[in-house]
Amino acid sequence: MTIDAPEPDRTLYFDVDRSARIVADSFRNTPDPRLKQVLQSLAQHLHAFVKDVRPSTDEWAAAIAFLTATGQKCDEVRQEFILLSDVLGVSMLVESLADNAGERLTEATVEGPFHMVASPVRELGDDINVSGEPGERCLITGRVVDQDGAPVPGATVDVWQANSLGFYDVQRPDEMPQGELRGLFNTDADGRFHFRSIVPAHYPIPTDGPVGDLLRATGRHGFRPAHVHFAISAPGLRTLTTHIFVTGSPYLESDAVFGVKESLIVDFALLDDPARAAAAGLPNPFRHADFPVVLHREERP
Amino acid sequence: MTIDAPEPDRTLYFDVDRSARIVADSFRNTPDPRLKQVLQSLAQHLHAFVKDVRPSTDEWAAAIAFLTATGQKCDEVRQEFILLSDVLGVSMLVESLADNAGERLTEATVEGPFHMVASPVRELGDDINVSGEPGERCLITGRVVDQDGAPVPGATVDVWQANSLGFYDVQRPDEMPQGELRGLFNTDADGRFHFRSIVPAHYPIPTDGPVGDLLRATGRHGFRPAHVHFAISAPGLRTLTTHIFVTGSPYLESDAVFGVKESLIVDFALLDDPARAAAAGLPNPFRHADFPVVLHREERP
Repeated sequence: MTIDAPEPDRTLYFDVDRSARIVADSFRNTPDPRLKQVLQSLAQHLHAFVKDVRPSTDEWAAAIAFLTATGQKCDEVRQEFILLSDVLGVSMLVESLADNAGERLTEATVEGPFHMVASPVRELGDDINVSGEPGERCLITGRVVDQDGAPVPGATVDVWQANSLGFYDVQRPDEMPQGELRGLFNTDADGRFHFRSIVPAHYPIPTDGPVGDLLRATGRHGFRPAHVHFAISAPGLRTLTTHIFVTGSPYLESDAVFGVKESLIVDFALLDDPARAAAAGLPNPFRHADFPVVLHREERP
Repeated sequence: MTIDAPEPDRTLYFDVDRSARIVADSFRNTPDPRLKQVLQSLAQHLHAFVKDVRPSTDEWAAAIAFLTATGQKCDEVRQEFILLSDVLGVSMLVESLADNAGERLTEATVEGPFHMVASPVRELGDDINVSGEPGERCLITGRVVDQDGAPVPGATVDVWQANSLGFYDVQRPDEMPQGELRGLFNTDADGRFHFRSIVPAHYPIPTDGPVGDLLRATGRHGFRPAHVHFAISAPGLRTLTTHIFVTGSPYLESDAVFGVKESLIVDFALLDDPARAAAAGLPNPFRHADFPVVLHREERP
């Protein structure tokens, strides 16, 4: 005596040839149409990748272990999955696809994993090198306009950078005060901003985790060229997340996270101008970088 | 006065159209040719996926958060990335691609996330339901042969299953003794094995983590049809990881992890045979499942 069961339908069961379609079909009842689209596309591309490389079960287990270690490396001040996305060029691709508004606009680049704490609100002209980190002193100026050239007063300019050893404040909480080399500024009536800092240095991304293991295994270096991060926003304008890169920095041609765009390489010019140095509150001579920013004014719906 | 730098070469910088090629090329110096192949294929398929769905930066951040939570859900007794691989059909695809040795062999299926502790060594005929979990008593028998029909004496038969509430010992350490419903057997001189257990029940995969969130968001259930896991190995033969599924179990047609193959659905027949029950050490009547196993004898290199 056996439990009666209908004759099984072969097409209901897993099959290598139809695997992507079977998995995509399992998402057919997803209420959110966008989530459904993303997961059905994921099923197609993920299964195509697996069929292309035909991993052994040991290789599959190694991939599971790598992803698990990547998740477990994350904490309040470390985001290893963003690093992984960065070194695979995915972060840069996402930023670039989202930033397709036109040639006259300032280009975007990756946010990176260190924009995790709120920058302190500061006044125009303030020094973000609050505790006097060693480094070449510089003045950074800029003006925010829209695509028609109209100035954007009151735009929020969020700035963050590493010190001359390549560390952000969150990476060295015992040595760097919180908010060091970060600042949240508002542009003046003419859309202008300016602040004091130090010229950033090139530095390696954190390589003491799974992403570092990946770079070592693949003969890739982990360095990023010298840069200052910006996130610039204002009502009615598309928020821009970008960097300026220092002209002549090493690794401009091989950024570990593929972040460099030619238009974002900015001259940190050495100025010998005692009057301007005194006005800015800097020793003479000093470096000066100017970053003109063009944001996209969104159409009203 | 500025730092002198050569004129930048546009082709060195990131570009959406060439993004997959740029990232694939970054792996050109990978010493291990297989790792290089896998990562260059990953770059192509991953970038194709991103270009297909064009995630917003908020969607990308949600994906980063999901992967991070998946890694952080893992511990000694929980492997959420295997679950994710399972519900995306990737585990089943990997097993099926690795298991392409021919139609006469016993088919493989997913290992699942609960083969994480060593099964206790047991004697043929032992009861793996050591502490007397409630459930319908059954005898499971089988014979291991190679593709030419020759018996495989001394093959290792590793068995694990859930109790009638759908829990493995590692999920309920306070209620189930370690090794409950697990056993490591060796086949006899004729390749045969037999042991006592309870008929497994269908059950849901763990849904209190990110994978459960994914299933709920997509209108998918998390149930697996009733099954017993096997991993069978012997020197010179390809190790087989598979299940037997209980004929008539719910969810045979919609296994949350796509694990069902028609050839693995086995009758747990109700036997009314007092003499055989007494010989097996089971109450009469009892269920009986027979699992003939054909392993692939590897060619000598």
